[in-house]
Amino acid sequence: MPNKADNISMSVIKRLPRYYRFLGNLKKNGVVRISSKELSSKMGFTASQIRQDLNCFGGFGQQGYGYNVEQLYNEIGTILGVNNGNKAIIIGMGNLGKAMASHMKFAKSGFNIIGLFDSDKSLMGEAVNGMEISHMSSLGEFCKENSPTVAVLCIPEAAAEDIVRELVSLGVNNFWNFSHYDVAANFPGTVSENVHLNDSLMTLNYQMMNKS
Amino acid sequence: MPNKADNISMSVIKRLPRYYRFLGNLKKNGVVRISSKELSSKMGFTASQIRQDLNCFGGFGQQGYGYNVEQLYNEIGTILGVNNGNKAIIIGMGNLGKAMASHMKFAKSGFNIIGLFDSDKSLMGEAVNGMEISHMSSLGEFCKENSPTVAVLCIPEAAAEDIVRELVSLGVNNFWNFSHYDVAANFPGTVSENVHLNDSLMTLNYQMMNKS
Repeated sequence: MPNKADNISMSVIKRLPRYYRFLGNLKKNGVVRISSKELSSKMGFTASQIRQDLNCFGGFGQQGYGYNVEQLYNEIGTILGVNNGNKAIIIGMGNLGKAMASHMKFAKSGFNIIGLFDSDKSLMGEAVNGMEISHMSSLGEFCKENSPTVAVLCIPEAAAEDIVRELVSLGVNNFWNFSHYDVAANFPGTVSENVHLNDSLMTLNYQMMNKS
Repeated sequence: MPNKADNISMSVIKRLPRYYRFLGNLKKNGVVRISSKELSSKMGFTASQIRQDLNCFGGFGQQGYGYNVEQLYNEIGTILGVNNGNKAIIIGMGNLGKAMASHMKFAKSGFNIIGLFDSDKSLMGEAVNGMEISHMSSLGEFCKENSPTVAVLCIPEAAAEDIVRELVSLGVNNFWNFSHYDVAANFPGTVSENVHLNDSLMTLNYQMMNKS
């Protein structure tokens, strides 16, 4: 596949997982091929937007045929790295950390959770989804032995700066960030994907107000 | 403000909370006005995309002046209904429900949590963020008395159909949906905003692979 991905804007990138999800459903339902027009009516993007987006990655469609669902699904999966198995740890095992450890399908998105950490001693030894919670004081040793590359930050904003500094010094440079701390701005060279659940709530609100 | 919002595509809508967040930060930092070009460099959208997006709602900018930050922030807030105070309940008080009840700033997005429900009797009477968890069997009475309009679904997919049916029969037609159940497809006339955390994880993965 031609790799034109160097100058792709983040707004295109952010749409890819949605394509992947929709194509996965189509595949599961036995759909073999689909036109950009059909895809657009299902996804709420315009057909021209879809053609433009997929062209960024070299273009997978054939005029008059449309897209091969399984091929497009697999190629977008590869672009998104769903088989990478990145070694990840969760920092902060309060309700949110526990919810992530027990419900999230990390493997499906290319991540492999190898450790759970908290600074609360009363949580030590408790298991979530078959994995024991470790104390933050063992983080350094753990990272040296296991070399995780990603941390899921389920910690309060106030705790984030010190924890991120420690993680970066231990070679963890990628963050799935539920805290409201701005990792990327404060630690250049790191990659941070911030989860803004309020954005989703506001979108719900808009839809409620503008229901037809 | 002229209301042109009738035919706005969901992809524009989904960008509004992000504008709102960025403008809120600018406002907090004392920025009075900003050009679409500056806004674009901060947000990673193109300047023409930003002008196009904001034009959908009647256009707030003046050529050669840019946007008044506070005015734009307030107007987008109104479009998103951040002051609506929609009455909402959380269904499912496992780790995820507890994380939502204790950490989410619902009020900031126009929602007011008035009840927490679970079918697990061992949770009854437990308080989260100052509010007691109620049993699902009291849901009908509660809805008649308090008329919530929104449910936050922190339940497994398998439980969702029956619960959504009950909620709809009780006048709850709007859903912030963490289950993977497709509410909108199965209950026409409802509004559902689905949270796909895996989309965010895949975006992280892409960024890790394409780090420059």
